[in-house]
Amino acid sequence: MGRLKLVDELKTILAPERVVTNRTVLEQHARGESFDEAALPDVVVYPESTQEVAEILKYATENRVAVTPVAVNSSLEGHTVPLLGGISLDLTRLDRILEFRPEDLLVVAQPGVTYPQLNKYVRRSGLFFPVDPGAHASLGGMIATNASGTAAVRYGVTGDYVLALEVVLPTGEVIRTGSRARKSSSGYDLTRLYCGSEGTLGVITEVTLRLSGLPEAASAARVPFSDAESATTFVTNLIQAGVPVARCELVDANSIRVVNAHQGTRFPEEMTIFLEFHGNPPGVAADLRLAEKLARDSGALLFESSSDVKERERLWEARHNMFYAAVAANPGKRNITSDVAVPISKLPVAVSKALCAHRDSGLNGYLVGHVGDGNFHIVTFFDGDDELAKVEQLNHQMVTFALSIGGTSTGEHGVGVRKLKYMELEHGGSLELMKRIKRSFDPHTVMNPGKKIPGVN
Amino acid sequence: MGRLKLVDELKTILAPERVVTNRTVLEQHARGESFDEAALPDVVVYPESTQEVAEILKYATENRVAVTPVAVNSSLEGHTVPLLGGISLDLTRLDRILEFRPEDLLVVAQPGVTYPQLNKYVRRSGLFFPVDPGAHASLGGMIATNASGTAAVRYGVTGDYVLALEVVLPTGEVIRTGSRARKSSSGYDLTRLYCGSEGTLGVITEVTLRLSGLPEAASAARVPFSDAESATTFVTNLIQAGVPVARCELVDANSIRVVNAHQGTRFPEEMTIFLEFHGNPPGVAADLRLAEKLARDSGALLFESSSDVKERERLWEARHNMFYAAVAANPGKRNITSDVAVPISKLPVAVSKALCAHRDSGLNGYLVGHVGDGNFHIVTFFDGDDELAKVEQLNHQMVTFALSIGGTSTGEHGVGVRKLKYMELEHGGSLELMKRIKRSFDPHTVMNPGKKIPGVN
Repeated sequence: MGRLKLVDELKTILAPERVVTNRTVLEQHARGESFDEAALPDVVVYPESTQEVAEILKYATENRVAVTPVAVNSSLEGHTVPLLGGISLDLTRLDRILEFRPEDLLVVAQPGVTYPQLNKYVRRSGLFFPVDPGAHASLGGMIATNASGTAAVRYGVTGDYVLALEVVLPTGEVIRTGSRARKSSSGYDLTRLYCGSEGTLGVITEVTLRLSGLPEAASAARVPFSDAESATTFVTNLIQAGVPVARCELVDANSIRVVNAHQGTRFPEEMTIFLEFHGNPPGVAADLRLAEKLARDSGALLFESSSDVKERERLWEARHNMFYAAVAANPGKRNITSDVAVPISKLPVAVSKALCAHRDSGLNGYLVGHVGDGNFHIVTFFDGDDELAKVEQLNHQMVTFALSIGGTSTGEHGVGVRKLKYMELEHGGSLELMKRIKRSFDPHTVMNPGKKIPGVN
Repeated sequence: MGRLKLVDELKTILAPERVVTNRTVLEQHARGESFDEAALPDVVVYPESTQEVAEILKYATENRVAVTPVAVNSSLEGHTVPLLGGISLDLTRLDRILEFRPEDLLVVAQPGVTYPQLNKYVRRSGLFFPVDPGAHASLGGMIATNASGTAAVRYGVTGDYVLALEVVLPTGEVIRTGSRARKSSSGYDLTRLYCGSEGTLGVITEVTLRLSGLPEAASAARVPFSDAESATTFVTNLIQAGVPVARCELVDANSIRVVNAHQGTRFPEEMTIFLEFHGNPPGVAADLRLAEKLARDSGALLFESSSDVKERERLWEARHNMFYAAVAANPGKRNITSDVAVPISKLPVAVSKALCAHRDSGLNGYLVGHVGDGNFHIVTFFDGDDELAKVEQLNHQMVTFALSIGGTSTGEHGVGVRKLKYMELEHGGSLELMKRIKRSFDPHTVMNPGKKIPGVN
């Protein structure tokens, strides 16, 4: 269909000012946050209701126009790139919290609400949504990628908190999955199927999330080690001891170095584990004592800890600032973040191998890991096509090694475009079942084509 | 196909002594644990390997023979009844633990292993599989119904522990889902789709489960209340306060009464909450203190607690013996257990309503609830068709009320046959997507026909 006709017809569905073809806006919707191949959409639309999303999808399916959903656009794997042009469906105006029921520990929100906004809203009731992927992500995007982040080791991933969804199917039909009960064995678990479906099976227009009680107390620790082996051994011992660590992050020496340079701090420039514990005050104190003992047994160089809120913030500062410090240390360069997860006991070898390969390549790579889950990322800076090819080679090695030891090609960032080529290797015969699901939910493949499941477009 | 031909042909796949048509064995495979409509299979087969399961399913699909998987057969909703005859696929001989990797906190087992067997096996390493549905259930059955039980309020449901599956598809093709990483955003979540699929999408032949660290300390409490309202209000306050209660069970006064009669005990014959806390010793002690304060604020009549292992057992005795005491109090009667889950704040009304309706009906009903999850069951005893009709009416009221307040028709027992009629009401338009999944995975509907998803046979 011609672009002018598409735009004209969309203006019969939405108020004309919410059907945008302004070049700047198209460019903002051409790529995600990481380095992605860019592609311009033909048009960006801003629905303000489920009904409007339904009419857009019905129109898109009838006219075989590709639809790429997007909100905060913090995707790192190209999920939001409109590879085939068409409609960029911007959900940022679906940004209302519709219902908050503290007595049921649940909240109902639209997909454009970000998780920091949600937490600000519910905090006064002593509850919180504990999934913390960073990047001020939207709830819809978090569900679409089954995001997780630093607190997953204790609290689980986004999917563990989604009780119910409203979804617009490609035909425009609106369905509801799940219920307000905290568990169910009724029907197939469509709610969970939509978690991590990356906008390829429909558009999430309403989410019902379970909340947790804010812990009474918290404590934090920073624990440097002289090498990856001893740092990750400590983590394995901690998890196996049944200590309910709330956050457990690894940051490599290189990253600490750029943080010190950027912030003027003097953190020991070593492989460092950052810990947080949640619970009641005596429980948290006991967790901290056990963690310190295990850390010293594994050869920790130091064990700095505190339960004071300001001091906790200071202890975690290097972790929080790592990405921005790395960007500052690599002026003018682009970066790609890769993400894998491996069985916990394989962390030492996987992390060491990735760091060695980066060192040998001559490229600057910075490693951070949600190591309590066996999940880690490396952000690599590069310049020009030769270096880009090197980054791709490094990431390819990292992913294929993770798969060879029983891991996964993505722990939390999702497949998007860049991991598509590993789906056959990772999933084998079960990929065919995924294709059947995709084809039976979206027979005309208008939903986010070219992402998540290869070979269906 | 004629039964003789079926049996002869199966004997070319399996050793003849594992293809059984003995009347007693057929009758053992004709119904589950609760009162079910019975139906005899034509034949019971006992495969001993994935390969044998694959050959049986290939044969069944080619010849359009119904296959009903079963192991411990503790199903309460008729999942294992071979409604259309055909093959009862008995998986109890797939009972090996294949690999135990304490350093990765995971174990690989066959589906016929029971969870008590698994826990006995892994216990020496300080790890455990925390899902505890009772009934010495098999892992395959627990996954097929997404079972949960008493510890779900703290540890989650079966699906939360399944990292990977090996599944035989109806065609005989063997696929693998998931990985050994503790989280993943790769591909659609087929692992979770199989959790709760009740044998309708294929046969699970191998399971990889995540394990938890055994808590250092535990404490228990028994807390009687004068009415359902104050008991369930206490539970809501406890959960909202962020106390990580490990088990939180409600048992009604009627049940305590039959336990006292059966065991000669003198537990207060009141609506009683049973609690358990897990953690480190000072943490558990602090949890208990807070729970006691909240209980007294909600009008608890007593608060008995202990961290001693023997004494904990004694405190929970009435909960553990409730079902057998109820059976003893109703000699010669049959029973049906129903299972719903509701939003937590609706527990008082849902529980009170169900108890009142039972009282009015004149039938003996005993209520037990995993109330930290808003999930409860009533087991009702009956005799003859008139009383059966009354039980069905009571359960119908309970389920439709649960659905009317945002709950689900089954919190953990699954749909099976008896809840089939509520699927349309509960799932609306999303039921059509479930049918598409069923049809695309099992186009000839040989897998457990007549269960889980209505209207596909």
